[in-house]
Amino acid sequence: MNPAIHPVDIVRVGDATWTDVQDVAATEEPLEIRLGGQPFVVIMRTPGADRHLAAGFLLSEQLIQRASDVSTMRYCADSDGQDSENVLNVWLQGESSVRVQAALASRRHVTANSACGVCGRRSIDDLLEGSHRIDSPLTVSRRVIEMLPVALRSVQRTFAETGGLHAAALFDASGELAGTAEDVGRHNAVDKVIGAALGRGEVPLSNHVLFVSGRTSFEIVQKAVVAGLPIIAAVSAPSSLAIELAREANVTLLGFVRGHTFNIYSVPARITG
Amino acid sequence: MNPAIHPVDIVRVGDATWTDVQDVAATEEPLEIRLGGQPFVVIMRTPGADRHLAAGFLLSEQLIQRASDVSTMRYCADSDGQDSENVLNVWLQGESSVRVQAALASRRHVTANSACGVCGRRSIDDLLEGSHRIDSPLTVSRRVIEMLPVALRSVQRTFAETGGLHAAALFDASGELAGTAEDVGRHNAVDKVIGAALGRGEVPLSNHVLFVSGRTSFEIVQKAVVAGLPIIAAVSAPSSLAIELAREANVTLLGFVRGHTFNIYSVPARITG
Repeated sequence: MNPAIHPVDIVRVGDATWTDVQDVAATEEPLEIRLGGQPFVVIMRTPGADRHLAAGFLLSEQLIQRASDVSTMRYCADSDGQDSENVLNVWLQGESSVRVQAALASRRHVTANSACGVCGRRSIDDLLEGSHRIDSPLTVSRRVIEMLPVALRSVQRTFAETGGLHAAALFDASGELAGTAEDVGRHNAVDKVIGAALGRGEVPLSNHVLFVSGRTSFEIVQKAVVAGLPIIAAVSAPSSLAIELAREANVTLLGFVRGHTFNIYSVPARITG
Repeated sequence: MNPAIHPVDIVRVGDATWTDVQDVAATEEPLEIRLGGQPFVVIMRTPGADRHLAAGFLLSEQLIQRASDVSTMRYCADSDGQDSENVLNVWLQGESSVRVQAALASRRHVTANSACGVCGRRSIDDLLEGSHRIDSPLTVSRRVIEMLPVALRSVQRTFAETGGLHAAALFDASGELAGTAEDVGRHNAVDKVIGAALGRGEVPLSNHVLFVSGRTSFEIVQKAVVAGLPIIAAVSAPSSLAIELAREANVTLLGFVRGHTFNIYSVPARITG
Protein backbone atom coordinates (compact mmCIF):
# COMPACT_ATOMS: atom_id res chain seq x y z
CA MET A 1 0.00 0.00 0.00
CA ASN A 2 1.12 3.54 -0.75
CA PRO A 3 2.58 4.90 2.53
CA ALA A 4 1.40 8.40 1.56
CA ILE A 5 -2.21 7.26 2.01
CA HIS A 6 -3.92 6.35 5.25
CA PRO A 7 -7.35 4.63 5.34
CA VAL A 8 -9.90 6.35 7.57
CA ASP A 9 -13.53 5.70 8.54
CA ILE A 10 -15.63 8.83 8.16
CA VAL A 11 -19.23 10.02 8.03
CA ARG A 12 -20.09 11.69 4.73
CA VAL A 13 -22.88 14.22 5.11
CA GLY A 14 -24.64 14.69 1.77
CA ASP A 15 -27.65 16.68 0.68
CA ALA A 16 -30.09 14.38 2.39
CA THR A 17 -27.85 11.55 3.56
CA TRP A 18 -25.50 10.71 6.39
CA THR A 19 -23.35 7.74 5.41
CA ASP A 20 -20.52 5.78 7.05
CA VAL A 21 -17.81 5.32 4.42
CA GLN A 22 -14.16 4.39 4.27
CA ASP A 23 -12.03 7.19 2.85
CA VAL A 24 -8.29 7.92 2.62
CA ALA A 25 -6.25 10.79 4.08
CA ALA A 26 -2.76 11.99 3.20
CA THR A 27 -0.29 10.58 5.71
CA GLU A 28 1.45 13.08 8.00
CA GLU A 29 4.14 11.92 10.44
CA PRO A 30 7.11 13.59 12.13
CA LEU A 31 10.60 12.91 10.78
CA GLU A 32 13.45 13.70 13.14
CA ILE A 33 16.72 14.32 11.34
CA ARG A 34 19.83 13.80 13.46
CA LEU A 35 23.20 15.11 12.35
CA GLY A 36 26.22 13.23 13.66
CA GLY A 37 24.01 11.76 16.37
CA GLN A 38 22.62 15.14 17.50
CA PRO A 39 18.93 16.03 17.08
CA PHE A 40 18.79 18.70 14.36
CA VAL A 41 15.20 19.24 13.26
CA VAL A 42 11.76 17.61 13.27
CA ILE A 43 9.85 17.96 10.01
CA MET A 44 6.16 17.08 9.73
CA ARG A 45 6.12 15.21 6.43
CA THR A 46 4.49 12.53 4.33
CA PRO A 47 6.62 9.35 4.59
CA GLY A 48 8.41 8.30 1.43
CA ALA A 49 11.57 9.74 -0.14
CA ASP A 50 12.85 10.64 3.34
CA ARG A 51 16.48 10.57 2.17
CA HIS A 52 15.61 12.94 -0.68
CA LEU A 53 13.83 15.18 1.80
CA ALA A 54 16.83 15.22 4.13
CA ALA A 55 19.28 15.89 1.29
CA GLY A 56 17.18 18.71 -0.13
CA PHE A 57 16.68 20.22 3.31
CA LEU A 58 20.40 20.15 4.12
CA LEU A 59 21.21 21.66 0.71
CA SER A 60 18.68 24.42 1.28
CA GLU A 61 20.23 25.08 4.69
CA GLN A 62 23.55 25.30 2.85
CA LEU A 63 25.05 22.61 5.07
CA ILE A 64 25.86 20.40 2.08
CA GLN A 65 26.63 21.27 -1.54
CA ARG A 66 26.74 17.88 -3.26
CA ALA A 67 25.63 14.30 -2.66
CA SER A 68 29.15 13.23 -1.69
CA ASP A 69 29.04 15.54 1.35
CA VAL A 70 26.75 12.94 2.92
CA SER A 71 28.59 9.94 4.30
CA THR A 72 25.60 7.88 5.47
CA MET A 73 21.85 8.17 5.98
CA ARG A 74 20.21 5.44 8.04
CA TYR A 75 16.94 5.09 9.94
CA CYS A 76 17.42 4.83 13.67
CA ALA A 77 17.09 1.30 15.01
CA ASP A 78 15.59 1.77 18.49
CA SER A 79 16.08 -1.02 20.99
CA ASP A 80 12.32 -1.71 20.90
CA GLY A 81 12.17 -1.32 17.13
CA GLN A 82 9.43 1.31 17.39
CA ASP A 83 9.00 4.30 15.07
CA SER A 84 12.40 3.72 13.57
CA GLU A 85 11.35 5.15 10.21
CA ASN A 86 10.59 8.47 11.85
CA VAL A 87 14.20 9.08 12.92
CA LEU A 88 16.86 9.45 10.24
CA ASN A 89 20.51 9.54 11.25
CA VAL A 90 22.69 11.54 8.85
CA TRP A 91 26.47 11.65 8.94
CA LEU A 92 28.29 14.22 6.85
CA GLN A 93 31.92 14.16 5.80
CA GLY A 94 34.68 16.60 4.89
CA GLU A 95 34.04 20.34 5.08
CA SER A 96 30.31 19.81 5.54
CA SER A 97 30.75 18.13 8.89
CA VAL A 98 32.78 21.13 10.07
CA ARG A 99 30.14 23.52 8.71
CA VAL A 100 27.44 21.68 10.67
CA GLN A 101 29.25 22.14 13.96
CA ALA A 102 29.51 25.88 13.31
CA ALA A 103 25.87 26.09 12.24
CA LEU A 104 24.67 24.26 15.33
CA ALA A 105 26.81 26.43 17.60
CA SER A 106 25.72 29.77 16.10
CA ARG A 107 22.10 28.87 15.70
CA ARG A 108 20.04 31.20 17.81
CA HIS A 109 16.55 30.71 16.62
CA VAL A 110 14.73 28.75 13.99
CA THR A 111 12.05 30.06 11.73
CA ALA A 112 8.62 28.65 12.05
CA ASN A 113 6.49 29.71 9.16
CA SER A 114 3.88 27.40 10.50
CA ALA A 115 4.43 26.96 14.20
CA CYS A 116 6.47 25.15 16.78
CA GLY A 117 3.69 23.16 18.41
CA VAL A 118 5.81 20.04 18.47
CA CYS A 119 9.10 21.50 19.74
CA GLY A 120 11.28 19.03 21.52
CA ARG A 121 8.95 16.13 21.04
CA ARG A 122 9.86 13.24 18.86
CA SER A 123 7.52 10.45 18.05
CA ILE A 124 3.84 10.39 17.27
CA ASP A 125 3.22 8.99 20.74
CA ASP A 126 5.09 11.91 22.28
CA LEU A 127 3.11 14.31 20.12
CA LEU A 128 -0.24 12.85 21.14
CA GLU A 129 0.67 12.32 24.76
CA GLY A 130 -0.26 15.12 27.11
CA SER A 131 -2.86 16.58 24.80
CA HIS A 132 -5.95 17.83 26.53
CA ARG A 133 -9.33 16.18 26.16
CA ILE A 134 -12.12 18.52 25.10
CA ASP A 135 -15.28 17.85 27.13
CA SER A 136 -17.47 20.64 25.75
CA PRO A 137 -21.13 19.60 25.29
CA LEU A 138 -21.47 22.05 22.35
CA THR A 139 -23.62 20.90 19.45
CA VAL A 140 -24.01 22.69 16.12
CA SER A 141 -26.57 22.17 13.38
CA ARG A 142 -25.38 20.95 9.99
CA ARG A 143 -27.16 23.97 8.49
CA VAL A 144 -24.78 26.25 10.40
CA ILE A 145 -21.75 24.27 9.19
CA GLU A 146 -22.88 24.61 5.56
CA MET A 147 -23.04 28.39 5.89
CA LEU A 148 -19.47 28.83 7.17
CA PRO A 149 -17.67 29.06 3.79
CA VAL A 150 -19.97 31.81 2.56
CA ALA A 151 -19.67 33.73 5.83
CA LEU A 152 -15.88 33.46 5.77
CA ARG A 153 -15.53 34.42 2.13
CA SER A 154 -17.56 37.57 2.70
CA VAL A 155 -14.97 38.87 5.17
CA GLN A 156 -11.88 37.42 3.49
CA ARG A 157 -10.90 40.71 1.93
CA THR A 158 -7.25 40.30 0.99
CA PHE A 159 -7.62 36.83 -0.47
CA ALA A 160 -10.09 38.20 -2.96
CA GLU A 161 -7.47 40.69 -4.11
CA THR A 162 -4.34 38.56 -4.04
CA GLY A 163 -5.38 34.91 -4.05
CA GLY A 164 -2.49 34.47 -1.67
CA LEU A 165 -3.81 34.37 1.88
CA HIS A 166 -5.25 31.79 4.19
CA ALA A 167 -8.09 32.70 6.54
CA ALA A 168 -9.24 31.44 9.91
CA ALA A 169 -12.43 32.39 11.71
CA LEU A 170 -14.30 31.70 14.93
CA PHE A 171 -18.06 31.22 14.88
CA ASP A 172 -20.54 30.61 17.68
CA ALA A 173 -23.12 27.79 17.62
CA SER A 174 -25.63 29.93 15.74
CA GLY A 175 -23.11 30.72 12.99
CA GLU A 176 -22.41 34.26 14.19
CA LEU A 177 -18.87 35.40 13.29
CA ALA A 178 -16.77 35.97 16.43
CA GLY A 179 -13.38 36.74 14.87
CA THR A 180 -11.35 36.40 11.70
CA ALA A 181 -7.75 36.69 10.52
CA GLU A 182 -5.75 36.32 7.31
CA ASP A 183 -2.12 35.39 6.73
CA VAL A 184 0.22 33.84 4.15
CA GLY A 185 0.64 31.05 6.74
CA ARG A 186 -2.34 28.86 7.65
CA HIS A 187 -1.02 28.37 11.16
CA ASN A 188 -0.47 32.08 11.62
CA ALA A 189 -4.09 32.83 10.73
CA VAL A 190 -5.16 30.36 13.44
CA ASP A 191 -2.74 31.87 15.97
CA LYS A 192 -4.05 35.39 15.20
CA VAL A 193 -7.70 34.51 15.61
CA ILE A 194 -7.08 32.56 18.83
CA GLY A 195 -4.68 35.23 20.17
CA ALA A 196 -7.34 37.91 19.65
CA ALA A 197 -9.87 35.77 21.54
CA LEU A 198 -7.34 35.30 24.34
CA GLY A 199 -7.07 39.08 24.61
CA ARG A 200 -10.86 39.31 24.96
CA GLY A 201 -10.80 36.76 27.78
CA GLU A 202 -12.69 34.17 25.68
CA VAL A 203 -10.22 31.26 25.99
CA PRO A 204 -11.07 28.36 26.51
CA LEU A 205 -13.29 28.70 23.43
CA SER A 206 -15.65 25.90 24.57
CA ASN A 207 -18.65 27.23 22.66
CA HIS A 208 -16.99 28.07 19.36
CA VAL A 209 -16.20 26.52 15.99
CA LEU A 210 -12.84 27.16 14.31
CA PHE A 211 -13.14 27.39 10.53
CA VAL A 212 -10.08 27.40 8.25
CA SER A 213 -9.88 28.11 4.55
CA GLY A 214 -7.41 25.38 3.61
CA ARG A 215 -6.31 21.97 4.81
CA THR A 216 -5.97 20.78 8.41
CA SER A 217 -2.60 19.60 9.71
CA PHE A 218 -1.63 18.13 13.07
CA GLU A 219 -0.46 21.54 14.22
CA ILE A 220 -3.75 23.27 13.48
CA VAL A 221 -5.61 20.69 15.56
CA GLN A 222 -2.99 21.03 18.29
CA LYS A 223 -3.52 24.81 18.42
CA ALA A 224 -7.30 24.36 18.55
CA VAL A 225 -7.04 21.79 21.36
CA VAL A 226 -4.86 24.08 23.49
CA ALA A 227 -7.45 26.84 22.99
CA GLY A 228 -10.27 24.48 24.08
CA LEU A 229 -12.12 24.49 20.74
CA PRO A 230 -14.54 21.51 20.41
CA ILE A 231 -15.18 21.76 16.63
CA ILE A 232 -12.81 22.40 13.71
CA ALA A 233 -14.16 22.74 10.18
CA ALA A 234 -12.11 23.19 7.01
CA VAL A 235 -12.67 23.76 3.31
CA SER A 236 -10.11 21.11 2.39
CA ALA A 237 -8.67 17.79 3.59
CA PRO A 238 -7.20 16.88 6.99
CA SER A 239 -3.96 14.92 7.30
CA SER A 240 -3.87 11.49 8.93
CA LEU A 241 -2.25 12.91 12.07
CA ALA A 242 -4.80 15.73 12.31
CA ILE A 243 -7.53 13.08 12.40
CA GLU A 244 -5.64 10.97 14.96
CA LEU A 245 -5.12 13.91 17.31
CA ALA A 246 -8.75 15.08 16.92
CA ARG A 247 -9.97 11.61 17.96
CA GLU A 248 -7.57 11.42 20.92
CA ALA A 249 -8.59 14.89 22.10
CA ASN A 250 -12.36 14.37 21.54
CA VAL A 251 -12.51 17.19 18.99
CA THR A 252 -15.05 17.13 16.15
CA LEU A 253 -13.10 17.48 12.89
CA LEU A 254 -14.88 18.34 9.63
CA GLY A 255 -13.36 18.61 6.16
CA PHE A 256 -14.36 19.40 2.57
CA VAL A 257 -17.06 21.77 3.85
CA ARG A 258 -18.40 22.85 0.46
CA GLY A 259 -21.94 23.50 -0.72
CA HIS A 260 -24.31 21.28 1.23
CA THR A 261 -21.84 18.48 1.90
CA PHE A 262 -18.95 17.76 4.26
CA ASN A 263 -17.03 14.91 5.89
CA ILE A 264 -16.95 14.17 9.64
CA TYR A 265 -13.66 12.60 10.72
CA SER A 266 -14.21 12.44 14.48
CA VAL A 267 -16.83 12.86 17.22
CA PRO A 268 -19.92 13.22 14.96
CA ALA A 269 -22.22 13.59 17.99
CA ARG A 270 -21.59 17.35 18.08
CA ILE A 271 -23.24 17.80 14.66
CA THR A 272 -27.07 17.75 14.68
CA GLY A 273 -29.80 17.80 12.03
CA MET B 1 -3.33 51.17 2.44
CA ASN B 2 -3.89 47.63 3.68
CA PRO B 3 -0.48 46.38 4.93
CA ALA B 4 -1.45 42.85 3.89
CA ILE B 5 -1.28 43.90 0.24
CA HIS B 6 1.81 44.83 -1.73
CA PRO B 7 1.62 46.48 -5.19
CA VAL B 8 3.69 44.75 -7.86
CA ASP B 9 4.39 45.34 -11.57
CA ILE B 10 3.93 42.16 -13.57
CA VAL B 11 3.57 40.88 -17.12
CA ARG B 12 0.27 39.13 -17.72
CA VAL B 13 0.48 36.55 -20.47
CA GLY B 14 -2.96 35.97 -21.97
CA ASP B 15 -4.23 33.86 -24.86
CA ALA B 16 -2.72 36.13 -27.47
CA THR B 17 -1.46 39.04 -25.39
CA TRP B 18 1.52 40.00 -23.24
CA THR B 19 0.61 43.01 -21.09
CA ASP B 20 2.40 45.06 -18.42
CA VAL B 21 -0.04 45.54 -15.54
CA GLN B 22 0.05 46.54 -11.91
CA ASP B 23 -1.15 43.77 -9.63
CA VAL B 24 -1.09 43.11 -5.87
CA ALA B 25 0.56 40.33 -3.87
CA ALA B 26 -0.04 39.18 -0.29
CA THR B 27 2.61 40.70 1.96
CA GLU B 28 5.07 38.28 3.58
CA GLU B 29 7.67 39.56 6.05
CA PRO B 30 9.61 37.98 8.93
CA LEU B 31 8.49 38.71 12.49
CA GLU B 32 11.06 38.04 15.17
CA ILE B 33 9.51 37.44 18.57
CA ARG B 34 11.83 38.09 21.52
CA LEU B 35 11.00 36.81 24.99
CA GLY B 36 12.47 38.80 27.86
CA GLY B 37 14.97 40.29 25.42
CA GLN B 38 16.10 36.90 24.03
CA PRO B 39 15.44 35.91 20.40
CA PHE B 40 12.77 33.19 20.51
CA VAL B 41 11.42 32.55 17.03
CA VAL B 42 11.16 34.10 13.57
CA ILE B 43 7.78 33.62 11.90
CA MET B 44 7.22 34.41 8.22
CA ARG B 45 3.90 36.21 8.38
CA THR B 46 1.60 38.81 6.86
CA PRO B 47 1.96 42.03 8.90
CA GLY B 48 -1.10 43.08 10.87
CA ALA B 49 -2.39 41.68 14.16
CA ASP B 50 1.18 40.87 15.21
CA ARG B 51 0.26 41.02 18.90
CA HIS B 52 -2.58 38.56 18.31
CA LEU B 53 -0.18 36.32 16.40
CA ALA B 54 2.36 36.41 19.22
CA ALA B 55 -0.28 35.74 21.89
CA GLY B 56 -1.79 32.85 19.94
CA PHE B 57 1.63 31.39 19.22
CA LEU B 58 2.70 31.56 22.88
CA LEU B 59 -0.61 30.00 23.97
CA SER B 60 -0.16 27.20 21.44
CA GLU B 61 3.38 26.65 22.77
CA GLN B 62 1.77 26.45 26.22
CA LEU B 63 4.04 29.21 27.51
CA ILE B 64 1.06 31.38 28.48
CA GLN B 65 -2.46 30.45 29.54
CA ARG B 66 -4.24 33.80 29.68
CA ALA B 67 -3.81 37.37 28.47
CA SER B 68 -2.63 38.54 31.88
CA ASP B 69 0.45 36.29 31.61
CA VAL B 70 1.80 38.88 29.16
CA SER B 71 3.22 41.95 30.82
CA THR B 72 4.15 43.99 27.71
CA MET B 73 4.39 43.60 23.94
CA ARG B 74 6.27 46.35 22.11
CA TYR B 75 7.92 46.65 18.69
CA CYS B 76 11.67 47.00 18.90
CA ALA B 77 12.91 50.56 18.39
CA ASP B 78 16.28 50.12 16.68
CA SER B 79 18.76 52.99 16.90
CA ASP B 80 18.34 53.60 13.18
CA GLY B 81 14.59 53.11 13.31
CA GLN B 82 14.71 50.44 10.60
CA ASP B 83 12.44 47.36 10.43
CA SER B 84 11.19 48.00 13.91
CA GLU B 85 7.79 46.48 13.11
CA ASN B 86 9.45 43.17 12.29
CA VAL B 87 10.77 42.67 15.83
CA LEU B 88 8.30 42.29 18.69
CA ASN B 89 9.57 42.31 22.26
CA VAL B 90 7.39 40.31 24.63
CA TRP B 91 7.76 40.30 28.40
CA LEU B 92 5.85 37.73 30.42
CA GLN B 93 5.05 37.83 34.11
CA GLY B 94 4.42 35.44 37.00
CA GLU B 95 4.63 31.69 36.42
CA SER B 96 4.82 32.16 32.67
CA SER B 97 8.15 33.90 32.81
CA VAL B 98 9.53 30.98 34.82
CA ARG B 99 8.04 28.51 32.33
CA VAL B 100 9.77 30.32 29.47
CA GLN B 101 13.18 29.97 31.03
CA ALA B 102 12.64 26.22 31.43
CA ALA B 103 11.32 25.92 27.87
CA LEU B 104 14.28 27.78 26.43
CA ALA B 105 16.73 25.71 28.44
CA SER B 106 15.23 22.33 27.52
CA ARG B 107 14.57 23.14 23.89
CA ARG B 108 16.58 20.85 21.75
CA HIS B 109 15.11 21.21 18.34
CA VAL B 110 12.30 23.04 16.68
CA THR B 111 9.87 21.61 14.21
CA ALA B 112 9.91 22.93 10.72
CA ASN B 113 6.89 21.72 8.85
CA SER B 114 7.99 24.01 6.07
CA ALA B 115 11.72 24.59 6.33
CA CYS B 116 14.40 26.48 8.13
CA GLY B 117 15.80 28.44 5.23
CA VAL B 118 15.94 31.60 7.28
CA CYS B 119 17.47 30.21 10.49
CA GLY B 120 19.39 32.73 12.48
CA ARG B 121 18.65 35.60 10.16
CA ARG B 122 16.53 38.48 11.19
CA SER B 123 15.48 41.24 8.90
CA ILE B 124 14.41 41.19 5.28
CA ASP B 125 17.81 42.65 4.35
CA ASP B 126 19.54 39.79 6.16
CA LEU B 127 17.28 37.32 4.38
CA LEU B 128 18.01 38.73 0.94
CA GLU B 129 21.71 39.35 1.56
CA GLY B 130 24.04 36.60 0.55
CA SER B 131 21.60 35.02 -1.86
CA HIS B 132 23.14 33.74 -5.06
CA ARG B 133 22.49 35.33 -8.43
CA ILE B 134 21.28 32.90 -11.09
CA ASP B 135 23.04 33.55 -14.41
CA SER B 136 21.60 30.66 -16.42
CA PRO B 137 20.85 31.61 -20.08
CA LEU B 138 17.95 29.10 -20.14
CA THR B 139 14.86 30.14 -22.10
CA VAL B 140 11.56 28.28 -22.20
CA SER B 141 8.64 28.68 -24.57
CA ARG B 142 5.31 29.85 -23.17
CA ARG B 143 3.75 26.77 -24.78
CA VAL B 144 5.88 24.59 -22.49
CA ILE B 145 4.84 26.60 -19.42
CA GLU B 146 1.17 26.16 -20.30
CA MET B 147 1.57 22.39 -20.38
CA LEU B 148 3.10 22.06 -16.91
CA PRO B 149 -0.15 21.80 -14.87
CA VAL B 150 -1.49 18.98 -17.04
CA ALA B 151 1.85 17.15 -16.94
CA LEU B 152 2.06 17.48 -13.15
CA ARG B 153 -1.52 16.44 -12.51
CA SER B 154 -1.06 13.27 -14.52
CA VAL B 155 1.63 12.07 -12.09
CA GLN B 156 0.13 13.55 -8.91
CA ARG B 157 -1.26 10.26 -7.77
CA THR B 158 -1.95 10.72 -4.07
CA PHE B 159 -3.53 14.15 -4.39
CA ALA B 160 -6.14 12.68 -6.66
CA GLU B 161 -7.06 10.21 -3.93
CA THR B 162 -6.82 12.42 -0.85
CA GLY B 163 -6.97 16.05 -1.94
CA GLY B 164 -4.40 16.59 0.75
CA LEU B 165 -0.96 16.74 -0.81
CA HIS B 166 1.21 19.35 -2.47
CA ALA B 167 3.36 18.42 -5.44
CA ALA B 168 6.61 19.74 -6.86
CA ALA B 169 8.20 18.75 -10.15
CA LEU B 170 11.26 19.47 -12.26
CA PHE B 171 10.94 19.86 -16.03
CA ASP B 172 13.55 20.47 -18.71
CA ALA B 173 13.23 23.22 -21.34
CA SER B 174 11.22 21.00 -23.65
CA GLY B 175 8.68 20.21 -20.94
CA GLU B 176 10.00 16.72 -20.24
CA LEU B 177 9.38 15.63 -16.63
CA ALA B 178 12.67 15.17 -14.75
CA GLY B 179 11.39 14.45 -11.24
CA THR B 180 8.35 14.76 -8.99
CA ALA B 181 7.44 14.54 -5.30
CA GLU B 182 4.38 14.88 -3.10
CA ASP B 183 4.03 15.88 0.55
CA VAL B 184 1.60 17.42 3.03
CA GLY B 185 4.13 20.29 3.21
CA ARG B 186 4.79 22.41 0.12
CA HIS B 187 8.38 23.01 1.18
CA ASN B 188 8.95 19.31 1.77
CA ALA B 189 7.83 18.47 -1.76
CA VAL B 190 10.40 20.98 -3.07
CA ASP B 191 13.13 19.57 -0.80
CA LYS B 192 12.34 16.02 -1.97
CA VAL B 193 12.48 16.82 -5.67
CA ILE B 194 15.70 18.85 -5.32
CA GLY B 195 17.25 16.27 -2.97
CA ALA B 196 16.61 13.51 -5.52
CA ALA B 197 18.26 15.62 -8.24
CA LEU B 198 21.22 16.20 -5.92
CA GLY B 199 21.61 12.44 -5.58
CA ARG B 200 21.67 12.13 -9.39
CA GLY B 201 24.45 14.75 -9.58
CA GLU B 202 22.16 17.25 -11.36
CA VAL B 203 22.57 20.22 -8.98
CA PRO B 204 22.96 23.10 -9.93
CA LEU B 205 19.76 22.67 -11.93
CA SER B 206 20.65 25.43 -14.42
CA ASN B 207 18.56 24.00 -17.27
CA HIS B 208 15.40 23.13 -15.35
CA VAL B 209 12.08 24.61 -14.33
CA LEU B 210 10.64 24.03 -10.84
CA PHE B 211 6.86 23.71 -10.88
CA VAL B 212 4.82 23.73 -7.66
CA SER B 213 1.16 22.94 -7.17
CA GLY B 214 0.34 25.70 -4.72
CA ARG B 215 1.54 29.17 -3.76
CA THR B 216 5.13 30.43 -3.70
CA SER B 217 6.64 31.72 -0.46
CA PHE B 218 10.03 33.28 0.23
CA GLU B 219 11.31 29.92 1.40
CA ILE B 220 10.38 28.10 -1.80
CA VAL B 221 12.27 30.68 -3.86
CA GLN B 222 15.20 30.45 -1.44
CA LYS B 223 15.37 26.66 -1.90
CA ALA B 224 15.22 27.02 -5.68
CA VAL B 225 17.98 29.66 -5.68
CA VAL B 226 20.31 27.46 -3.62
CA ALA B 227 19.69 24.64 -6.12
CA GLY B 228 20.52 26.96 -9.03
CA LEU B 229 17.06 26.85 -10.64
CA PRO B 230 16.49 29.75 -13.10
CA ILE B 231 12.68 29.42 -13.47
CA ILE B 232 9.96 28.77 -10.87
CA ALA B 233 6.35 28.33 -11.95
CA ALA B 234 3.35 27.86 -9.68
CA VAL B 235 -0.36 27.20 -9.96
CA SER B 236 -1.15 29.89 -7.39
CA ALA B 237 0.06 33.26 -6.12
CA PRO B 238 3.53 34.27 -4.92
CA SER B 239 4.03 36.31 -1.75
CA SER B 240 5.60 39.78 -1.85
CA LEU B 241 8.87 38.46 -0.43
CA ALA B 242 8.98 35.58 -2.91
CA ILE B 243 8.84 38.17 -5.71
CA GLU B 244 11.46 40.37 -4.04
CA LEU B 245 13.91 37.49 -3.64
CA ALA B 246 13.30 36.24 -7.20
CA ARG B 247 14.17 39.70 -8.56
CA GLU B 248 17.30 39.99 -6.39
CA ALA B 249 18.47 36.54 -7.42
CA ASN B 250 17.63 36.97 -11.14
CA VAL B 251 15.14 34.10 -11.06
CA THR B 252 12.12 34.04 -13.40
CA LEU B 253 9.02 33.66 -11.20
CA LEU B 254 5.65 32.71 -12.72
CA GLY B 255 2.31 32.41 -10.97
CA PHE B 256 -1.32 31.51 -11.68
CA VAL B 257 -0.19 29.11 -14.41
CA ARG B 258 -3.65 27.93 -15.49
CA GLY B 259 -5.05 27.15 -18.93
CA HIS B 260 -3.34 29.37 -21.48
CA THR B 261 -2.55 32.25 -19.12
CA PHE B 262 0.00 33.06 -16.41
CA ASN B 263 1.71 36.00 -14.68
CA ILE B 264 5.43 36.82 -14.89
CA TYR B 265 6.71 38.47 -11.70
CA SER B 266 10.40 38.71 -12.51
CA VAL B 267 12.96 38.29 -15.35
CA PRO B 268 10.50 37.81 -18.25
CA ALA B 269 13.36 37.44 -20.75
CA ARG B 270 13.59 33.71 -20.04
CA ILE B 271 10.07 33.15 -21.45
CA THR B 272 9.79 33.11 -25.25
CA GLY B 273 6.98 32.96 -27.78
